[in-house]
Amino acid sequence: MSIERTLKFSVKDISFINDMRNIAIIGPSQKDNFFFLRSHQENFKGDNIFVVHPNIKEIPDFDDGTKGKVFKSVKDIPVPIDYVFITVPPSQILTIMEDCAKKGVKLASIFTANFSESGTKEGIELERDLLKKAQNKVRFLGPNCMGLYYPKLGLAWRPKFPSTSGGNIGFVAQSGGMCNIAIYMANELGIKFSKVFSFGNGADLDLVDLLYFLSQDPETNIILVYVEGIKKGRGKKLKEILAQNKKPIIFLKGGKTQAGSIAAKTHTASLTGESHVWTSVFTQYNAIEVESLEQLLFAAKIIDCYGTFTLNNVAVFSISGGYGVVLVDLIEREGMRVPSFSSEIQKEMDSKFFKLGTSSKNPLDVSAQIYYSNIMREVIDLALSDNKIDGLIMDLPTWYFSMDFQLRKDPTFEPNMIEALSLGHKHNKPLFTIIQRVNCPEDRARVFQKMNERKVPVFGDPLEFISLLPKVSKFANKNKNNL
Amino acid sequence: MSIERTLKFSVKDISFINDMRNIAIIGPSQKDNFFFLRSHQENFKGDNIFVVHPNIKEIPDFDDGTKGKVFKSVKDIPVPIDYVFITVPPSQILTIMEDCAKKGVKLASIFTANFSESGTKEGIELERDLLKKAQNKVRFLGPNCMGLYYPKLGLAWRPKFPSTSGGNIGFVAQSGGMCNIAIYMANELGIKFSKVFSFGNGADLDLVDLLYFLSQDPETNIILVYVEGIKKGRGKKLKEILAQNKKPIIFLKGGKTQAGSIAAKTHTASLTGESHVWTSVFTQYNAIEVESLEQLLFAAKIIDCYGTFTLNNVAVFSISGGYGVVLVDLIEREGMRVPSFSSEIQKEMDSKFFKLGTSSKNPLDVSAQIYYSNIMREVIDLALSDNKIDGLIMDLPTWYFSMDFQLRKDPTFEPNMIEALSLGHKHNKPLFTIIQRVNCPEDRARVFQKMNERKVPVFGDPLEFISLLPKVSKFANKNKNNL
Repeated sequence: MSIERTLKFSVKDISFINDMRNIAIIGPSQKDNFFFLRSHQENFKGDNIFVVHPNIKEIPDFDDGTKGKVFKSVKDIPVPIDYVFITVPPSQILTIMEDCAKKGVKLASIFTANFSESGTKEGIELERDLLKKAQNKVRFLGPNCMGLYYPKLGLAWRPKFPSTSGGNIGFVAQSGGMCNIAIYMANELGIKFSKVFSFGNGADLDLVDLLYFLSQDPETNIILVYVEGIKKGRGKKLKEILAQNKKPIIFLKGGKTQAGSIAAKTHTASLTGESHVWTSVFTQYNAIEVESLEQLLFAAKIIDCYGTFTLNNVAVFSISGGYGVVLVDLIEREGMRVPSFSSEIQKEMDSKFFKLGTSSKNPLDVSAQIYYSNIMREVIDLALSDNKIDGLIMDLPTWYFSMDFQLRKDPTFEPNMIEALSLGHKHNKPLFTIIQRVNCPEDRARVFQKMNERKVPVFGDPLEFISLLPKVSKFANKNKNNL
Repeated sequence: MSIERTLKFSVKDISFINDMRNIAIIGPSQKDNFFFLRSHQENFKGDNIFVVHPNIKEIPDFDDGTKGKVFKSVKDIPVPIDYVFITVPPSQILTIMEDCAKKGVKLASIFTANFSESGTKEGIELERDLLKKAQNKVRFLGPNCMGLYYPKLGLAWRPKFPSTSGGNIGFVAQSGGMCNIAIYMANELGIKFSKVFSFGNGADLDLVDLLYFLSQDPETNIILVYVEGIKKGRGKKLKEILAQNKKPIIFLKGGKTQAGSIAAKTHTASLTGESHVWTSVFTQYNAIEVESLEQLLFAAKIIDCYGTFTLNNVAVFSISGGYGVVLVDLIEREGMRVPSFSSEIQKEMDSKFFKLGTSSKNPLDVSAQIYYSNIMREVIDLALSDNKIDGLIMDLPTWYFSMDFQLRKDPTFEPNMIEALSLGHKHNKPLFTIIQRVNCPEDRARVFQKMNERKVPVFGDPLEFISLLPKVSKFANKNKNNL
């Protein structure tokens, strides 16, 4: 990131994040058994993690050499400190920040609350003073936030946050609670974060700064945002960032209704602005907008699996004629089409169906032919090979993967179907599978895991993802036209 | 059910179903290891289950006394037969039906396919002949259907269908595959069917007959329907049934889009009719309409827990301020309100909040105070005691129920929160909990099970149920006005 560009956008440079090595936890609570220290320590992969506390001399189970020492002040630590996590009472925050500035700390996360979000004069003033003490030297997240989750460095504010590196999804959120849910859910969905920023009141680093960082970050190629509002005067910068960003970016905007907007003000002192203004910004700058945290993660999962794609004409594959009919309705209602196959494909498709009660037309109703899994793989391959077809949506009830429920105990069924579900990648067309949450949870979990490894999205309910597909498709079309 | 009423509506009387005792499986396939026999046998609670097959003399593991015998014809069975499940090739169907009529079989389910749904002249004629052979003596489901699932009698066409009696939900569906998914899913959701009818082509018993039966059935108090279309001339009867029905009734209409309508024609030879006609019928006769099979079951779950209810003003309780803001948006977008509490309630509520970063206003943002579970129970109790509030929606991430993830290892947390989540019943106001699918699947399953026992609906995603609430509320209001 060149200094020129940074200045042009008036955004703060935090490109040093990818090279941080030494961190300190300031003021972890003894009463909570040093929760934030334990969490950061759990998977830390940097050089050193230090503890700063004014009154505590020793911490149980934290005695591995130099790291075991508790320092009275961050200034006393003998090596340079890149990052601190601050959880002291509001009364101590100014001294702590002064020390951090003197020490040359690069980035701080401030968990401490009761600043501007409290709505009190004292809180607002304290936040202003905090900013002064940082002197534009210490960049900071918060106050009233959870800070930075950076799995590559093993930086985590809660236990059991996934610690594998190689994540590619960046998430910026005003709400720490949202980050918690998102981080654990990403693990469940088989997607990985590059960085998650919880920035709370955003007194220093705000949405604009963090978005700019992620848009330039080589470790990030999909950006997720939960935003309630932005500070006055930052709207223009936000638009500049969005205009230069080329990565898929997905927004969840909180406080779009009147009651939601009032709630957001209590939450992070955010002025949420007019709902339609935000929507028109998202449209103008080609950002995808979703309605819930779950949709935010599901959209990320879809793009992580297939990149962005154009999806107008969909093939449907169903075990149950009725479920297939409903899928067609849901797909068409979202503006996509379920057209007939090309005539030569249809001819070949007909030759693959031999059981009564099936249909070889689109939507495919395979019924009892599902047990002929090698033929099912050919059917899906054939459907995706049709030039008229952009992608495929199918349902495959869980019990077909359970030997206890299978009509024929066929060990080739699962490997064949896993091959079949992966055929989207062969044709470079997205394939989505619904495996309903109906029974056989262990079998479902096993197949889900295998499909995650092969980057094939599996859902439990069609309403989880079908409305997201035209949004991704619209992004892809507009992005293509802009290149 | 009086004969007068039956005649008045020109519907067929199948009230004998609740008293059936003896059944026969006709033509189970040796190649499939007698799948349909095994399934019906698994939990059968009637007097006798017999097998009819022209060529097979003995069936392995089916030799318990009289029941072990394979009969050449249903006519040879020495006791009266109430119900038969027929799975013979189309070529044998007319003889079999003739025998059933002679034997005095009351109800038959015909799995055999290749009748009118095939679209061929032969198929259409065969279906017409089948109807003649039944002579209005044998009532039948199908052809091209799965028949009847009746757990009280242990009647089931697939393995591991729940066999506990006491179910209260009736389901009528043209699609057998839909029934399979619904039956396994109901088990997962902790709801129980009284009867499920898969009626396929509906040559004899059709949607109108079965709906009338369920509307009168003392074992059924919620009715679910999956319908693609109805036969010409039956629309008026359908309206009569809907007009006299007082039970909550939920429809999933397949084939409402053009492509969906074409698919439905292939599936069950249904003429789906104009989408807007159906919707106006549902509106006029106060039926709830949903968009997916999952919504059909979720709506049933909600009504099974709370009956029908009026829900305009909602209290929101969230661990995460951001998640709470989004919940408010989702609720308000569906036309419900998240109002402030009454002033006296608000005063008391304020006194229960003491941690920084919380909010005692509606939406409640409990943040780290969640660990004070006894106070959380009081908070929920207080919110529901407000006359301004009709119900409560909350989220409670899964990891709070895991000792491994808990900040404080507090054994009172789970029992306190389970009490708290059950408080809707104390106040006679619906309470809905979202426990996200993010981690700790065993802990989630345990809590889910406990809440099912207490008839408290737990979801994994707000979009699974929030749009259903105004539909249930509208039903309740209209039903009240009609009484």
